[in-house]
Amino acid sequence: MSFERLQKKIDELENPTVAGLDPDLAHIPEEILKKHITELGENLEAATMAVIEFNAGLIDALCDIVPAVKPQSAYYEALGPYGALALKKTIDYAKKKGMYVIVDAKRNDIGSTAAAYSTAYLGRIKIGEMEFAPFDADAMTINAYLGSDGIKPFIEASVKYDKAVFALVKTSNPSAGELQDKLIENTRPLSYAVGDLLEEISKDTVDKNGYTCVGAVVGATYPQEAKQLRERLKHTFFLVPGYGAQGGSAEEAAKSFDKNGKGAIVNSSRAIIAAWKTRGGDYATAAREEALKMREELRRVLY
Amino acid sequence: MSFERLQKKIDELENPTVAGLDPDLAHIPEEILKKHITELGENLEAATMAVIEFNAGLIDALCDIVPAVKPQSAYYEALGPYGALALKKTIDYAKKKGMYVIVDAKRNDIGSTAAAYSTAYLGRIKIGEMEFAPFDADAMTINAYLGSDGIKPFIEASVKYDKAVFALVKTSNPSAGELQDKLIENTRPLSYAVGDLLEEISKDTVDKNGYTCVGAVVGATYPQEAKQLRERLKHTFFLVPGYGAQGGSAEEAAKSFDKNGKGAIVNSSRAIIAAWKTRGGDYATAAREEALKMREELRRVLY
Repeated sequence: MSFERLQKKIDELENPTVAGLDPDLAHIPEEILKKHITELGENLEAATMAVIEFNAGLIDALCDIVPAVKPQSAYYEALGPYGALALKKTIDYAKKKGMYVIVDAKRNDIGSTAAAYSTAYLGRIKIGEMEFAPFDADAMTINAYLGSDGIKPFIEASVKYDKAVFALVKTSNPSAGELQDKLIENTRPLSYAVGDLLEEISKDTVDKNGYTCVGAVVGATYPQEAKQLRERLKHTFFLVPGYGAQGGSAEEAAKSFDKNGKGAIVNSSRAIIAAWKTRGGDYATAAREEALKMREELRRVLY
Repeated sequence: MSFERLQKKIDELENPTVAGLDPDLAHIPEEILKKHITELGENLEAATMAVIEFNAGLIDALCDIVPAVKPQSAYYEALGPYGALALKKTIDYAKKKGMYVIVDAKRNDIGSTAAAYSTAYLGRIKIGEMEFAPFDADAMTINAYLGSDGIKPFIEASVKYDKAVFALVKTSNPSAGELQDKLIENTRPLSYAVGDLLEEISKDTVDKNGYTCVGAVVGATYPQEAKQLRERLKHTFFLVPGYGAQGGSAEEAAKSFDKNGKGAIVNSSRAIIAAWKTRGGDYATAAREEALKMREELRRVLY
């Protein structure tokens, strides 16, 4: 249940890294795009096929050294209706290669609708007498602004199908603090109140490592808050964005881990998938080299 | 720009209603599902075809009396990769029939990713020398938890392509207040602070009716807050969920309109699209009758 499968995978590879699969077309080598455009024309189908090929190459290059991938749903949706197919094919291929898949979708809604989102990414839908898992990821990201009744359907699906979620607590972007840092009820920043709410509503799901099925997104770009949130939220697994291209260092990312160097995973997207732009050569080899460099940086500060 | 097109449509039909297209399979008459299952089998394709047919029937029945539809993305995503096709076909058909389309997606992310979401639903993507509008809705819903840099890409797309967005301020669900009602900086509830932020960052986009391109979602189920938010956010167009099935009345929804009975639109989903369950008969006729009843209730309190 919950994050046990992810922690096991991290321990096996001694690497708490998740590679963000954010296939902005600008990150895809020209020759891959050209090949599909030559075949299908300048259209959304060609771009979709290029994304599927690009991701498969990245997964092949990373699957024996990186435990998890995080497809960012926005870049698939930007391809129109075909994009959802690229997302599904990416999820399926990564799982086939043994990787843990976190769909970064930041979904949120009222209870009945949140249940439909949890069905989409974590659960199953019944059609006639048959049951289908629409996207069947291992975990997804959510936004907690609607409160507990918008979060509970994700907890239910996590418990039922051995999945997990990460809710936004302190995001990595420059304007994160405009709302998240504001003091509420004169006691604590909003982000801390969100974290407290997550621990409270998921407390019955603590796994053998001490973590619930509701993790928290806590940006590496705010190490001071990360340190305090780590101390405060003892049963919450952290997903740490902001490393690399956004400016967070390994030392800063380390604040989100527990005393044993566990309970967190650090994301890097652009720095890995677009490494060919700075390193040159084959994009998959460049991604692997960058991922190995990140692994060494994290190992140095954690283990 | 902004909400002018929507207000014009509302004025023409004298009806500030948006019909929520939330195609939970339980809302679709058995015979429609059966027809497609007989043809395609018990699978996600059959369910997707049933949703497309169901929505087209609703749009045909509503397009001369209801100005807008609001497809709820969660129910399309729950159909897996095919669902995005059903969403796109629904958007296209509703626009062809002259309706204003608000995609209820509640998207949110850091700036670069928010830009990809705005491209998906409001903007255009370039592939080679060609440009495509992936989903091409008129408006969409977003979540403001990440602050201004996560909202600005939606404003830019709205200005560039004559679109608009609605950000969550006070949602209609029972647990909305757990975070949204909390006093921040000892001065105002979080929901008010979100509203203030939206007005501030969109102030350069005020249209001829006095409204910016960033509207607010304000639930009919909290009429006291709606009244205060209406007074506070003078340049913000309101999208009002919670009417009907969730318990909000016409009098309560009326709190979200300005003195002239403008500046807001009220959503009803289940009560309209599943009206056949209580009214009996053909689902499209039942939806139309329910929409006419809602129109009369709103006209009575507004005009």
